[in-house]
Amino acid sequence: MSQRRVIKNGEIELDHIGIAVPQIATSSAFWKALGWTNTSADESYPAELVADQKVQVAMLETNNRARVELLEPTDDASTVKKFMDKRGPGIHHLCFRVKNIVEVLKTLKAAGVKLINESPVPGAHDMMVAFVHPSSTGGVLVELSEPKQSVSK
Amino acid sequence: MSQRRVIKNGEIELDHIGIAVPQIATSSAFWKALGWTNTSADESYPAELVADQKVQVAMLETNNRARVELLEPTDDASTVKKFMDKRGPGIHHLCFRVKNIVEVLKTLKAAGVKLINESPVPGAHDMMVAFVHPSSTGGVLVELSEPKQSVSK
Repeated sequence: MSQRRVIKNGEIELDHIGIAVPQIATSSAFWKALGWTNTSADESYPAELVADQKVQVAMLETNNRARVELLEPTDDASTVKKFMDKRGPGIHHLCFRVKNIVEVLKTLKAAGVKLINESPVPGAHDMMVAFVHPSSTGGVLVELSEPKQSVSK
Repeated sequence: MSQRRVIKNGEIELDHIGIAVPQIATSSAFWKALGWTNTSADESYPAELVADQKVQVAMLETNNRARVELLEPTDDASTVKKFMDKRGPGIHHLCFRVKNIVEVLKTLKAAGVKLINESPVPGAHDMMVAFVHPSSTGGVLVELSEPKQSVSK
């Protein structure tokens, strides 16, 4: 994984754009042709299995560190598979990194924002994550994330 | 507009994420609550009309300069209106900045990528732009852009 800068309270950064694809191997060709590079240290096995979510993920990065996460379902029960059955392949979610995810979730809840996860749950890449419901964001599934070791108990 | 760094040949950067919304005024509330700020110099009129595309656009920015462009149709004939009629509000496109857009389009065409615009056309924010068809990108409408003054004739 590339090094991401440490962010402060009240700051927010785009971490990655999640894209649902049938197959990482075939779908990454376009992105690589455009100049994106795989962030995996192991080019021979560039995808990571996220068993809980029943997906494999591959992270591609541009020069200014924007990142695309290709999501390939490993099982028909995967929510990513269900997403594709309904809408076809395409952008699945936006992930933003925040500082103090527990506080951010409380603030959003108090503001009437509908949360899928009211408390953070384990995600890929050693992050704790929580999803915000698209009905509160203008139709976008938003994932908030914070490194595991910095989340307050 | 905020200052964006000049990019070199072969580089690619995420410029913004375009989100189709019914109304900029109501839809920007969630993004602002999360810490995004409007990049417009004129807070009393934060949207720009793009007459050709029959939309108003407002650009919101995070700390690491990721940008969200909210797109509000001004007319039923807008392609953004048609997109929302079919899929509801949500992410409409990803825009990447490239150097030498004319050459990039030639390279993509030679690679068999389906282009909506084979030559760049005028876009918002004094950019020349071209769209890549979602069928070639894994379901994502991709916009490529380059500042007008740097596009080769």
